[in-house]
Amino acid sequence: MCEREQEALCNRPVGVFDSGVGGLTVAREIMRQLPNERIVYFGDTARVPYGNKSRETIIKFSRQIVRFLQTQQVKAIVVACNSASAYALEVLEKEVDVPIIGVIKSGARAAIDATKNDKIGVIATEATIGSGIYNRYIKEHHPDAAVLGKACPLFVPLVEEGLWEDPVTDEIAGRYLTELIDVGIDTLILGCTHYPMIRSTVGRIMGPEVTLVNPAYETAHELKQLLREKGLESGHRPGLGTELYRFFVSDAADKFQKFANSILTYGILSAKVINIEEF
Amino acid sequence: MCEREQEALCNRPVGVFDSGVGGLTVAREIMRQLPNERIVYFGDTARVPYGNKSRETIIKFSRQIVRFLQTQQVKAIVVACNSASAYALEVLEKEVDVPIIGVIKSGARAAIDATKNDKIGVIATEATIGSGIYNRYIKEHHPDAAVLGKACPLFVPLVEEGLWEDPVTDEIAGRYLTELIDVGIDTLILGCTHYPMIRSTVGRIMGPEVTLVNPAYETAHELKQLLREKGLESGHRPGLGTELYRFFVSDAADKFQKFANSILTYGILSAKVINIEEF
Repeated sequence: MCEREQEALCNRPVGVFDSGVGGLTVAREIMRQLPNERIVYFGDTARVPYGNKSRETIIKFSRQIVRFLQTQQVKAIVVACNSASAYALEVLEKEVDVPIIGVIKSGARAAIDATKNDKIGVIATEATIGSGIYNRYIKEHHPDAAVLGKACPLFVPLVEEGLWEDPVTDEIAGRYLTELIDVGIDTLILGCTHYPMIRSTVGRIMGPEVTLVNPAYETAHELKQLLREKGLESGHRPGLGTELYRFFVSDAADKFQKFANSILTYGILSAKVINIEEF
Repeated sequence: MCEREQEALCNRPVGVFDSGVGGLTVAREIMRQLPNERIVYFGDTARVPYGNKSRETIIKFSRQIVRFLQTQQVKAIVVACNSASAYALEVLEKEVDVPIIGVIKSGARAAIDATKNDKIGVIATEATIGSGIYNRYIKEHHPDAAVLGKACPLFVPLVEEGLWEDPVTDEIAGRYLTELIDVGIDTLILGCTHYPMIRSTVGRIMGPEVTLVNPAYETAHELKQLLREKGLESGHRPGLGTELYRFFVSDAADKFQKFANSILTYGILSAKVINIEEF
């Protein structure tokens, strides 16, 4: 590849996708850690949530999204959804010709680094917990670890309703987290991209001795290393007039924008609705 | 049409659809009130919920489902989902060549009959409340009525998590219902098919003076009248060996069956997964 071709390739955006708005917490970290990179974000707001759906459906939806992202000439893809990372990443890796990473491995690695008593907890959707993937990955790399997963299906609707600091969220979190406190974990993975929004509630209930791991941070870091290894880093921040970040959704762009603007410091000018079922 | 053709037509099933499991409360009422009728039920479990999605998306999904039901040779269609009734029914009526009814008109009529002080409340999803359709329909038929709608987005996840009798549901219901109590409504429409499951919680908070209207009952009654008018009633209960009720979903049949069996007295032997995006 000649130098000019290589530069054109490096200037391509990174594709980031999620079942909805949660993946914006990952996009936010990429914006922070990789300020030179352009991003094409897709949120599947027409079919959200994924966390209570089956492996087959999650794979089908993820395949359609990856096909859409490829039409956007992305140079790499980040699966910014734990449920999709849990079920679809291994399948997608075999089918896609650009580097693709998920959020699970990064989160698992950070938890392995953080734990001192080898007791690691994972809170996530039913799909992610049901897949057993955090458990499998942690055990592979740290066989002595004991991993306890807990599905927290009400956290996503509570976050989406904005009850980030609320007695109801405290009560529900208390119920979900009791088992994890009882077994004495010292590290807890926030295994769903919505959960960083209720980090302070979870932290308060778990207590200051428990380290909370947010895979978003680690995923952005892994992306940085990956782009460097593959020679795909963008060498400079795109000039004025270049659209740095583009947002696509499968439903209700205005609602998405409102939520996005509450998460991102960068204001989203617009999000575009596409028909994802066509891909 | 000759007599034999007419009988064959009458023996066809009624199509009933919902975004997921909620419409089973309507199917249950049809089973009770119209025991001779066969039913083909479709629950869009891959794309549930509809209640927080846009008009365009709800119409698109509903059209696909109607096309699927037509492949099942249904003689009539019941839109057993308030959000789909609110946004898609008027569009579908123009496109479909079999009689089609929703749950909104039935519920509105029952509320008009029940109210004494002309103050009617409606609790429903964001989509249904946002459409303003209960308000519009009630005012058309009873201009003196004051209608207050309240979106209750957390009720569906609370019902789906089984918290039908729970302090958290009490707390959330208390917040949602305060306004309705304050304005002194005497009639409250349960404008989402999930809500009959928390009827006792809502009833306790509203107090015994407030009549709760469940459109499921009225919808089954309206279907009965419609089939009679059109000469489409099944004259006899299908014989042994005929499959009376068939269930289709777009995702995770086993999970659907489990929930269905907790709602229906009739045990669901099986539900079949279809790819609804193909229709």
